[in-house]
Amino acid sequence: MLQGHRTWIFENKPVIISTGTVGGPFEANGNVPESFDILHDDMWLQQDSFEKAQQTMMEEACQHAIKNSSIQKEQVNFFIGGDLTNQITPTTFAAKSVGVPYFGLFNACATSMEALALSACIVNNGGADYILSGTSSHNAAAERQFRYPTEYGGQKPPTAQWTVTGAGCSLLAQHGNGPAVTSATIGKIVDMGITDAFNMGGAMAPAAVDTIIAHLKERNIDPSYYDLIITGDLGKIGNKVSFDLLQENGIHVKKEQYVDCGLTIYREDQPVLSGGSGAACSSVGVYGHYLKLMKEKKVKRILSVATGALHSPLSIKQKASIPCIAHAVSIESGSDDV
Amino acid sequence: MLQGHRTWIFENKPVIISTGTVGGPFEANGNVPESFDILHDDMWLQQDSFEKAQQTMMEEACQHAIKNSSIQKEQVNFFIGGDLTNQITPTTFAAKSVGVPYFGLFNACATSMEALALSACIVNNGGADYILSGTSSHNAAAERQFRYPTEYGGQKPPTAQWTVTGAGCSLLAQHGNGPAVTSATIGKIVDMGITDAFNMGGAMAPAAVDTIIAHLKERNIDPSYYDLIITGDLGKIGNKVSFDLLQENGIHVKKEQYVDCGLTIYREDQPVLSGGSGAACSSVGVYGHYLKLMKEKKVKRILSVATGALHSPLSIKQKASIPCIAHAVSIESGSDDV
Repeated sequence: MLQGHRTWIFENKPVIISTGTVGGPFEANGNVPESFDILHDDMWLQQDSFEKAQQTMMEEACQHAIKNSSIQKEQVNFFIGGDLTNQITPTTFAAKSVGVPYFGLFNACATSMEALALSACIVNNGGADYILSGTSSHNAAAERQFRYPTEYGGQKPPTAQWTVTGAGCSLLAQHGNGPAVTSATIGKIVDMGITDAFNMGGAMAPAAVDTIIAHLKERNIDPSYYDLIITGDLGKIGNKVSFDLLQENGIHVKKEQYVDCGLTIYREDQPVLSGGSGAACSSVGVYGHYLKLMKEKKVKRILSVATGALHSPLSIKQKASIPCIAHAVSIESGSDDV
Repeated sequence: MLQGHRTWIFENKPVIISTGTVGGPFEANGNVPESFDILHDDMWLQQDSFEKAQQTMMEEACQHAIKNSSIQKEQVNFFIGGDLTNQITPTTFAAKSVGVPYFGLFNACATSMEALALSACIVNNGGADYILSGTSSHNAAAERQFRYPTEYGGQKPPTAQWTVTGAGCSLLAQHGNGPAVTSATIGKIVDMGITDAFNMGGAMAPAAVDTIIAHLKERNIDPSYYDLIITGDLGKIGNKVSFDLLQENGIHVKKEQYVDCGLTIYREDQPVLSGGSGAACSSVGVYGHYLKLMKEKKVKRILSVATGALHSPLSIKQKASIPCIAHAVSIESGSDDV
């Protein structure tokens, strides 16, 4: 399975047999509302806290993925996921509702592909028949934990990003119809000394570049192998910085081939500053919009590079820099789809 | 690899080729100081925050494990771990220092065996040559995050537990000398409605019982297969409750066979109330004391059942109950040791 130092090749090609994506009102009003399975017109989802609203979205995403498959919940071996909230409680409470054995993860907004890589590793090796993996985030829950309560109306610089309200999950199986998870490259911590938590895209860009370079090298492929290389939530600044860094490193990615979920989900005229972010950003972007493009045969091979800024409010107050990470997973249209 | 619904059998028997355990002054004065590789007489470890002291202990544990093996750091494929701190920053900053590709996990005090189970799954299937996996906790960092700053001197009920200051890690390899990781059973969320965060042992006991029963059933073995069944941090109350629940379920574990890391690390006369806890509790207990017993040929087969209470200060304030989990990993003395 291991090829090179940190890349896995999934010889048995685990299949994403279904997905579930959920969004809030701001996402419903965004650029790709048709790519969400469920959209809510209320941030609260009739719950009494934002965290419970987030939990509910994660539950709905899982339920939708199961409903859209041919299997029953009881056949799912594991749920693997995480989120940005302290002690990842929305994911854990969702795991309680889903009721299947659970691995909790935390790699901030890179958790989506951390979860898919581990799920594919397990399924590829016969460690599970079916695994649900996913992530969620909620704008208001993230704002009050990482920054200020939204009611405070704090102003932000243009480098800041907008946390996606949503949840995305995939149901991975040993066999079935759907796109295959073919390889993964695991990220390492890259920290260029940035301490400004309002510039996460800039902080995360070098981590994305490090993982993309390692992936192409260890798989011994050229960027042109992929129709799209899809970063998680670099936003405008991180997208530009990482694109330039790739070119400087001799990786000739094309502009139109290099996209970011944080720049996909919202319209240009929505006030999201540098773009979308959050643990749900890459999961709803990839499991929603980009796998839809694959289903419509508009793309055949994608590399999903989820990016995470692994600081905490406390580490920022303690003047630590922002350690960043990116995990890359390649998804290719299955033989049934070609 | 899968046997039953949530148990993995590691046919290729990954080997723990070395370990590293670090403790603080309270642990140095405890019941098993000889089982720690490194002991500190200062809670601060000459750092300027408790979180950095915790990070330093995790780094030392990893360094010690590598130093005590025949390999170089560059040969380690992955570091897998987590802790209790918001956004698991001590683990992440340690991963930055260790400098190898990183998976961050959060299952509270069950993270140690979540990490070892995933590591064994990966190594068993050729996804890595070497993996470092470990957890850390720091009493003062945990106190101020989950309860009050220690300076406040808040009083606790006798059901409360004492967070271990320490870090423990293992270095897992495909081959070598040392105990083998032979199987793992993944926990699911068990939540009996307890809302008292000062009674985590009681809250976690049913999760431990659920996982132990599933493990024995899916492996089709009797409790007598193991010399010891070692829970993570149930403490006095959780140990008694879970022992009674096992008997009620027809699992006839013997008193002397059923031990808890939270009751192993400290002396009876240390003021730890119901016992030790924290993400390091099971990692220093198992990788330190219990693997030492295995090395001394006093035990041959152990089942390590790390237990986690997955609440957050916020979820408790929001009056949610405490979701709990337990992951079990069996470790057996290798053929070289028999």
